[in-house]
Amino acid sequence: MKVEPRTLPGFMELFPNDQIEFNSIKEKIQKSYEKFGFLPLDTPIIESAEVLLAKAGGETEKQIYRFNKGENDLALRFDLTVPLAKYVAEYGGELSFPFKRYQIGKVYRGEKAQAGRYREFYQCDIDIIGDEVLSLMYDAELPSVIYETFKTLGFEDFTICINNRKILNGLFESLNLNEKSGDILRIIDKIEKIGKENVIKELEELKVPEKDIDTIMKFIEITGNSDEKIQKLKDLGITTKTFNLGIYELEEVINGIRKNKVPEKNFTVDLTIARGLDYYTGTVYETFLNDYKKIGSVCSGGRYENLAEYYTDKKLPGVGISIGLTRFFYQMKKENILKQEKRSISKVLVAPMSNEEITYALEVANALRNENINTETYLEDKKLKAKFKYADKLNIQYVIVLGEEETKERKVTLKNMITGEQETATLDEIIKKIK
Amino acid sequence: MKVEPRTLPGFMELFPNDQIEFNSIKEKIQKSYEKFGFLPLDTPIIESAEVLLAKAGGETEKQIYRFNKGENDLALRFDLTVPLAKYVAEYGGELSFPFKRYQIGKVYRGEKAQAGRYREFYQCDIDIIGDEVLSLMYDAELPSVIYETFKTLGFEDFTICINNRKILNGLFESLNLNEKSGDILRIIDKIEKIGKENVIKELEELKVPEKDIDTIMKFIEITGNSDEKIQKLKDLGITTKTFNLGIYELEEVINGIRKNKVPEKNFTVDLTIARGLDYYTGTVYETFLNDYKKIGSVCSGGRYENLAEYYTDKKLPGVGISIGLTRFFYQMKKENILKQEKRSISKVLVAPMSNEEITYALEVANALRNENINTETYLEDKKLKAKFKYADKLNIQYVIVLGEEETKERKVTLKNMITGEQETATLDEIIKKIK
Repeated sequence: MKVEPRTLPGFMELFPNDQIEFNSIKEKIQKSYEKFGFLPLDTPIIESAEVLLAKAGGETEKQIYRFNKGENDLALRFDLTVPLAKYVAEYGGELSFPFKRYQIGKVYRGEKAQAGRYREFYQCDIDIIGDEVLSLMYDAELPSVIYETFKTLGFEDFTICINNRKILNGLFESLNLNEKSGDILRIIDKIEKIGKENVIKELEELKVPEKDIDTIMKFIEITGNSDEKIQKLKDLGITTKTFNLGIYELEEVINGIRKNKVPEKNFTVDLTIARGLDYYTGTVYETFLNDYKKIGSVCSGGRYENLAEYYTDKKLPGVGISIGLTRFFYQMKKENILKQEKRSISKVLVAPMSNEEITYALEVANALRNENINTETYLEDKKLKAKFKYADKLNIQYVIVLGEEETKERKVTLKNMITGEQETATLDEIIKKIK
Repeated sequence: MKVEPRTLPGFMELFPNDQIEFNSIKEKIQKSYEKFGFLPLDTPIIESAEVLLAKAGGETEKQIYRFNKGENDLALRFDLTVPLAKYVAEYGGELSFPFKRYQIGKVYRGEKAQAGRYREFYQCDIDIIGDEVLSLMYDAELPSVIYETFKTLGFEDFTICINNRKILNGLFESLNLNEKSGDILRIIDKIEKIGKENVIKELEELKVPEKDIDTIMKFIEITGNSDEKIQKLKDLGITTKTFNLGIYELEEVINGIRKNKVPEKNFTVDLTIARGLDYYTGTVYETFLNDYKKIGSVCSGGRYENLAEYYTDKKLPGVGISIGLTRFFYQMKKENILKQEKRSISKVLVAPMSNEEITYALEVANALRNENINTETYLEDKKLKAKFKYADKLNIQYVIVLGEEETKERKVTLKNMITGEQETATLDEIIKKIK
C-alpha cells in the first residue's frame, strides 16, 4: 500500500523556478534591511504556549497551532512580534539600544484555507526598540527602508501612506467618542474597500451622532499634499493635547522622511490609515503599489508604546514594519509583475557529447567554478538533445558542449541558449565571454 | 501578573553577533551548493502525519512532534529527506531529471535536551535524484561539493571518508552472515568511538563465529592509501557479485573524485564507514575535521536505491549529503574555531554630535548607502561616548562623527574603531577609504 504524496492546503510549495524567484525577493528584502544596519534574529518556531499567548486572545487564539509534547504546552509562533517581545524582555540586559533587528521567517495561523490565504507564511519584519525612549527620527527612518526595499524589488510607482494614531484619538477625545474609537477606527479603515457611503452607514449603525459623523467625514476628506493636510489639521482648531501631539509627531516624521531623501512622490500623509485597533499608538504606515491597489497594503506597521509589557515592567517603545512575503509573492505571480527576478541557479551547463568526454567536462566545470561561475555538469549518459532540453527547462543561459574534437584541441563550444549563438574557442576566452 | 519570558530547552536562540556568524556560515553553504547548480526547495514544516510517517518507525516516531488541528493529524518534519521524497513523488512529472536540489531548513525532533543536542535544528541537504537510473559520476560529484563547502568555510585539514555498502554486504553474504548484517554494521560503525576490542566483544556477544570475526576484523584493518585499499580488497579473493560490484563502484567513485580535482589529502577510502542501517545501498560518505575528530562527522550521506518507494512505484535512485548546521555551529563555537566569520551588519555608524547635525547625518548615511555600504545613523539624543560604545558593541568598524565644523564645511570625521585612526576629509574621499 502506497501513501498518497500530498501537501496540506494553505501551505505554499513551489517549483524550483518559482522558488528561485521567491528566494531572490527574500534576499533583496534582507539586503535592504541590512543596508540600514538591522541585526538578524532567528527565534524558535515553537514556544511555550503560555509565553506566546500572554497577550493574545480572540481570533489569534483560535487560529493558533497549539499542542502538547510530553508535559509541555507548546505553540507555533503566529507572528514575529511576540517572539521579539519575549527576546528583548529575556535578554534586554545584553542588547544595545536602540535595538534594531530584522527577522525573516515562517509563521503559522490555522486560517480557513482559500486562494492567497496561507497557514504557513513568511513575514519579513524590522523593528527598532528603544530603552524607555525612542526618537521620532526612527519613525522617519522606516519609510526610507520601505523605499529602498521596493526600489530594490524593481518597483517605481508606490506610495507609503503615513498617519498618526494620536490625531484620530485626539479627534475622538474632542468629540467625546473615546469609547467608540476602536469601532470607529475599524470602520474608517475600510473606506478604500467599502466606500464613503457605507462608512457613514456603519457609523450611523454605531449610533454616532450626525454632527460628529460630519466632523469625522470632514476630517477624513481633508485633501492636498502632505503639508496642506497638516495645515488643514491645524486649522480645525481642535485643542485636545493628544490631537496636537499627533500633528506635531506627524510633521516631525514627514520632515524626517524628506531628510532621508525619500522622493515626494513615494510618500504621503493619508489620514484614513488607521492600522487595526489598539496596538499602534503613534505613527502608522501602509504601502500601496499604485498600479495594483486592489491587492491592499504590501508593507505596514507603526509605532507602539510598549513592546513587552506582558513580560516586563521595563518600558520598551518601538516602531516597526512587516512584509507578508508569501501572500505578496502569490499576488505578484498572479498579476504577473515579477519579470526581473532571477530564474536560474546555474549559469552554465557543461554537456559532454559522450562518456568519453566526462574527464574533460569535469575539468572545464571545475575551472568555471573557480571563476565563481555557477556550473553543473550533465553526467547521465543521454543524447545531446536531452541535455539541451534540461538546460532549457532550467533556464540555464549557456551550454558548453564538449566532443571529441574539443577534447583533443582543448577547446570548448559555447551555445548561448537565449540568442542561439554558438562558437568554439579556448576556455579562457569563453570564460571572459560568460563573465 | 507578568509571564516569565523564556525560550524552551533544546531550542537555539542566539545573540545578534552570533546570529550574524551563523547566517554567514549558512550563506556560505548555500552559495557552495548553488555553485554546483543545486536548485532550492522550501517544503512546509508541517505535513500530514500519514505522509511524514509513511516510512518512519521506532525512535523517529517517538521523537516526532505530532498533533491535531481540527480533524487533521499533523506532524513537524524530522528531516528533509522525507519531504523530498514526497515532493518528487508528488510533482515528478514536472521536474527535470537528474533532479538536483538543496534545502536548508529547520527540522524537529523531541530528543532529550542536553548540551549540543537540539530539538529544533537546521539541516543543509543536497540530493541528486535520478529517473530510474543515476550515474555513479554523481556519487563522485558530491565529495567535490563537500570540498568546496568546507574550503569556503575556511577549513583546510579535513578528510572526506568514502566507502561502499555493497562491499560490506558482499562480505557478509560470503560469510553467510546476511541476517546479522544490520547489527554487525552498527557495531563496526562505532569503532572510532569504542575501539577495536569492544567491537570484537560486541560481535562475540552477537554470536558471530570466531573465524568470521577474524575475517571481518582483517577486512576492517585493511590499511594503505585509497588505491592500496582497493587492491587489497580485490586480493581478498571474495567472489560474491555484491562484493565485486561494491569494489567496482568504489573504484569508479574514487577515480571520479580525482577527475573533480579534489586534492588527495582531502579524501580517502575508509572501510569502517557504514552510515547507519538500511537506508544506504552503495556509496557512503563521512567528513571529519582532522583537528577536531572527537566532534564526529560534520557532513555525511550516501547513495540510496529508491527515494520514494512509500509513495510511488517509480524507481528514484539518489545520492545526497547533509550538514547538521545547528549542532556544527554549537561545536565550532565551543571549540572556538570560527575566527574568520563576519561579525557585523553595519560597516559604518554615522554619529551626529547633537540633534543639530541630524539633517547632515541623514544625508551622509544616504550617500554611503547609495555606494552599497551598510550604514546606520545613531538618532537618539545621547552623548558621543554612548554612540561609540554602541558601535563597539556591534563590532561596527567605522564611526563617522559630524559636529558643527564638519557640517559647516561639508566634511566628515572618520574614526577606524579597529586601528583608532581618525581623519577629517570630504565625504567622497572617505567613501573611497571605506571601500
